[in-house]
Amino acid sequence: MTDQWFLKPAKLIDQADLDSARSHQLQLTKPPGSLGQLEDIAILFCGWQKSVTPSCKQIQIAVFAADHGVCAQGVSAFPQQVTTQMVHNFTNGGAAISVLAKQLNAEFQVINLGLISPIDETEGLINTPLMMGTQDFTQHSAMSPEILLDALNAGRAQINDKADLFIGGDMGIGNTSSASAIYSVLLEQSPELTVGPGTGVDKDGLARKRKAIYQALNLHGEQLQTPLNILQRIGGLEIAGLVGAYIASAQAGVPILVDGFITTAAALLACRINPSVRAWMMFSHKSAEPAHTLALDSLEARPLLDLQMRLGEGSGAAVAASLIISALALHNNMATFASAGVSES
Amino acid sequence: MTDQWFLKPAKLIDQADLDSARSHQLQLTKPPGSLGQLEDIAILFCGWQKSVTPSCKQIQIAVFAADHGVCAQGVSAFPQQVTTQMVHNFTNGGAAISVLAKQLNAEFQVINLGLISPIDETEGLINTPLMMGTQDFTQHSAMSPEILLDALNAGRAQINDKADLFIGGDMGIGNTSSASAIYSVLLEQSPELTVGPGTGVDKDGLARKRKAIYQALNLHGEQLQTPLNILQRIGGLEIAGLVGAYIASAQAGVPILVDGFITTAAALLACRINPSVRAWMMFSHKSAEPAHTLALDSLEARPLLDLQMRLGEGSGAAVAASLIISALALHNNMATFASAGVSES
Repeated sequence: MTDQWFLKPAKLIDQADLDSARSHQLQLTKPPGSLGQLEDIAILFCGWQKSVTPSCKQIQIAVFAADHGVCAQGVSAFPQQVTTQMVHNFTNGGAAISVLAKQLNAEFQVINLGLISPIDETEGLINTPLMMGTQDFTQHSAMSPEILLDALNAGRAQINDKADLFIGGDMGIGNTSSASAIYSVLLEQSPELTVGPGTGVDKDGLARKRKAIYQALNLHGEQLQTPLNILQRIGGLEIAGLVGAYIASAQAGVPILVDGFITTAAALLACRINPSVRAWMMFSHKSAEPAHTLALDSLEARPLLDLQMRLGEGSGAAVAASLIISALALHNNMATFASAGVSES
Repeated sequence: MTDQWFLKPAKLIDQADLDSARSHQLQLTKPPGSLGQLEDIAILFCGWQKSVTPSCKQIQIAVFAADHGVCAQGVSAFPQQVTTQMVHNFTNGGAAISVLAKQLNAEFQVINLGLISPIDETEGLINTPLMMGTQDFTQHSAMSPEILLDALNAGRAQINDKADLFIGGDMGIGNTSSASAIYSVLLEQSPELTVGPGTGVDKDGLARKRKAIYQALNLHGEQLQTPLNILQRIGGLEIAGLVGAYIASAQAGVPILVDGFITTAAALLACRINPSVRAWMMFSHKSAEPAHTLALDSLEARPLLDLQMRLGEGSGAAVAASLIISALALHNNMATFASAGVSES
């Protein structure tokens, strides 16, 4: 590891910008605090953008896709070919995240970091596979240390430092197994607690998922010491891409809106690798996947939504982005008590 | 009461429309149920609009404003003149709801149903006061039975039956006291439970608020038998306007997105007067006002947001409207498994 760019600190946030945004909120024509979390969002954006009229017009959505060797253990409700089929669906505009990206007028990219089969070049697809899916982490390391670095770099390479907001998405049949394994190690929780139904496996599938994670923890055991080791041995290529993207986003000073179960695993790894990244993250929603709450708590995250979503792709974040747009419109356009001639309490 | 229009049933919803929307959701390229409440919203809209591609383009926001005689008991953190000042702020575009209405490109009206002082005609203001604020309900009935009917009619008159969604808002310094009194009676809960800080009264103000409600319950006691009696004796003019608007909206077949603490009191009254109205209501958010949860539970409502908002004006509903727009975009524009060539589970 010659260039450990991912350890470099995130862009600094100036406390004075947060303080002046907080005073501005107190002057707006509403009881203090009555816009709840929308006020907090607006204040954070003032700090992030060093602006008194922050903006969330230019949203970047990057969906990282890859396959997972652990599918050999029968951990998913969907066949593995669905990862590739959904990549086509993303670029064709038919997937949830494609519809939401269009609604938000967002910059939208899909990045193939390792589908099991080659895929044709298409508009909107960044086709840079690093391997044909990870290896089955119940038997081997998911990827080599070199490929881990390539995946982190690929994530970093996507970041548009002109964007007002970065949303990362994930696609990879089997990736809730990888995320659950990561949570088991990082949060020191048994697979009984970290494994949920994912896209909808039945009781037997759930048992297979838990068994696979126990196997992986036994196999890799003592080697799971650092967040980078964990990512390399039991992670996924798309998860590693997200980790690189999150760290680079925070370094470039682009606020991050984290999606759900998979992306929060990447967010947690990014923060363990480089704790300065946390200050650039918001969390969009509480996933219906049960262990997500444990992960959010460990990040001291207060998600914006709790709509029982569990789709991934960045969809929860794309839905929550509208709340940010409202929060900034209110901060930027409401009258003050003085300007409107309204008496204070 | 010669014309009891408010007892007439809400427009019927055809179960077949809901069923076919539910099947459509199962064909979209996502694990079944993975969009959570967004799926439920889309299905409801298909039923409400008798459409397979429902729309939420034309949103009507009507804010009803009036003053409250109970302010004489020192129940609010803000002086009573703020109601009138905020009405000016609404029409001038500086209030939270004005900013959000503009963001949604919504039809926006402000209706004066009873400010304490006369107010100049302004664009965007429907200036039809019924009395100069309610009477202090700790001493008298808030309004006469005749004025109650006028207020219900005024609410009904606002409904645009071409709208895709109706949002009602409230403005009235002192109106959390009225709402708390209504909740105490309808939910059979003591003022200890139904009274919260409103716009931010301190401990002494909170004690005065509770005392005022105890006084009102003692004074009106046995007379608080029907929802109409309750509304007339301890309600507010803007609350009565909202009740009329909600009932008329459901009768006209326009879906209702209820805002927060005050509007939910109106929604609860509307449903007690005419239970068929409930089927046309969604609930936008859980207010930071503690008793709101009791009210939502009694309506079996699952609010979309919980952002610790407590502003009123319809602001929580206007923020949540974006989620409806996303839900319908997903329902209308996502590919099916068949059309996208994606394998099912």
